[in-house]
Amino acid sequence: MSPGAPVDAGITFGVDIGGTKLHGVALAGGGGVVAEARLATPQVDDRAPGEPGAEVAEAVAELVAELRGRVPRVGEALCVGVGAPGMVDRTGTLRFAPNLPAAEGVDIGRLVSARLGEATVLVENDANCAAVAELAVGALRGVRDGLMVTLGTGIGGGLVVDGEVRLGARGFAGEVGHMIVDPAGPPCPCGRRGCWERYASGGGLGRLAREAAYAGRLAHVVAGVGGDPENVHGEDITRAALDGDPGALGVLDELGWWVALGLANLVAMVDPERIVLGGGLAEAGELLLAPTRRAFVDLVEGVDVRPAIEIGAAALGERAGAVGAALAVRGRR
Amino acid sequence: MSPGAPVDAGITFGVDIGGTKLHGVALAGGGGVVAEARLATPQVDDRAPGEPGAEVAEAVAELVAELRGRVPRVGEALCVGVGAPGMVDRTGTLRFAPNLPAAEGVDIGRLVSARLGEATVLVENDANCAAVAELAVGALRGVRDGLMVTLGTGIGGGLVVDGEVRLGARGFAGEVGHMIVDPAGPPCPCGRRGCWERYASGGGLGRLAREAAYAGRLAHVVAGVGGDPENVHGEDITRAALDGDPGALGVLDELGWWVALGLANLVAMVDPERIVLGGGLAEAGELLLAPTRRAFVDLVEGVDVRPAIEIGAAALGERAGAVGAALAVRGRR
Repeated sequence: MSPGAPVDAGITFGVDIGGTKLHGVALAGGGGVVAEARLATPQVDDRAPGEPGAEVAEAVAELVAELRGRVPRVGEALCVGVGAPGMVDRTGTLRFAPNLPAAEGVDIGRLVSARLGEATVLVENDANCAAVAELAVGALRGVRDGLMVTLGTGIGGGLVVDGEVRLGARGFAGEVGHMIVDPAGPPCPCGRRGCWERYASGGGLGRLAREAAYAGRLAHVVAGVGGDPENVHGEDITRAALDGDPGALGVLDELGWWVALGLANLVAMVDPERIVLGGGLAEAGELLLAPTRRAFVDLVEGVDVRPAIEIGAAALGERAGAVGAALAVRGRR
Repeated sequence: MSPGAPVDAGITFGVDIGGTKLHGVALAGGGGVVAEARLATPQVDDRAPGEPGAEVAEAVAELVAELRGRVPRVGEALCVGVGAPGMVDRTGTLRFAPNLPAAEGVDIGRLVSARLGEATVLVENDANCAAVAELAVGALRGVRDGLMVTLGTGIGGGLVVDGEVRLGARGFAGEVGHMIVDPAGPPCPCGRRGCWERYASGGGLGRLAREAAYAGRLAHVVAGVGGDPENVHGEDITRAALDGDPGALGVLDELGWWVALGLANLVAMVDPERIVLGGGLAEAGELLLAPTRRAFVDLVEGVDVRPAIEIGAAALGERAGAVGAALAVRGRR
């Protein structure tokens, strides 16, 4: 998977389907974002009647239509890249999506094409898209062996080996959130227990936060949400941590430890020179990066003998997935 | 890392340094093993006086000298590939070797060269060597995205991406034995806790066996080793399992579960089409492969939607590391 055609190839659209929101961009040939929009991800019961994935595809098409209306003009060939959370096979079908069950087993590309009229639609795993973007124009530029990890509703990964984002035999490489890090851990929507994303994702942060709240370590935060520890969410923690709340900082330390544990495992496997963290959680910046880096040196094998591995934030922030999707589709026109 | 020069390039030597023994081969230009020899790995206290790694290098040189004496004739250019257990950097220095501390930090290539006279010596991670061999002439032939995992004293890995064994940014890719699978697990010589190789290696089998022995599930086996559960070793289990001992078969089931857990994690990361198991433990064949395959389908993400991943034994068996080392050095002459 490579960024594809040259930068003067005209506007393409990219949509990143997240667990809570869709993020769309219109990308100029030169690589600049010329329009940007967001939409809530349809929360559909997967046993609801109707075509599975229809609502999600409808939302993608709606977002693209909105973006299209906001750019000066686009040629005849409408090109849309879509980043989807989960196991996307090489035909563009979302085969398994614990965090988006309503779109599971669905050929999103076909549905989106049907709604947009004549269009080239490429569907790829969201984190692989983010890796394409960071490799082409972001924090992985010039890196031969690197790792993109997106910390959002779930955890995604994009693997850069010898200068290219690698998709694996079936397109499923980088499904790092479902690496099991504690076989006796909490159950995961994927059907197993103790997956990394139960600890180090947005959901994991919420769980760590509620544990801390029940243990009485977040008195201030709990008071702020009306007194019920059950109402403490990840956002409350990052907000309180910004204000210097020691309990909230403690939760982010814990989160950083779990992030670092998974990164150390990935390093053991693929030995990257740089790791880039994206997704919603990475918006916390140094509040999360600093404890992650501290824990990483304790958790990575052979820290004393290996050159330091840089752990940084995605240069494209939350846009990485959408920008990467818009870049990836350029190779398919 | 690729097999290098054509097969008519003359005899090269390969030595695989294991935790308990050195395995050496002389490989004909056509790829056939023309001589083979073994030697016990020197068990040296790493605080002993003298040059670190000297004994190990001496043993490698001795093995090569023995093999050299047994092949009809070798040209002037002596070429030796060495597979070493641990983190070997791209200069051939064994940087970190929890299972071979006496050779840690040592430029094995230089020491071996000094003992053999004029020679080209290439030092590589042992499992990467095994992957080179299986890819060139074994069970990974024709595979684009595959995984070699060696289950011996420790666990090693070799990562095949788009048809090549990949070494990572510093040469440390494939250090899969030190993926943490249980942060509260037993301490590992690498300095951390709950590494995969504490469960799924030869040492892991010994630990599982002793646990079963103390729990009274291995009465027959314990009686056979004089009545002390502490004396039960991995070999006793595979032997008893071959005789159909239910307790021993149960221990191999448990071992297979742990092997499968790590494989499922690696699959999440790199999505191989085939996994090949080598190393001493893989000699147990179906006794280990069958329970591993059974557990794997429970542990891999999205088993219902992904094409089956083949899990098989290394075609070259315990020779894989030595043969791969002999192949790898061909590219360096």
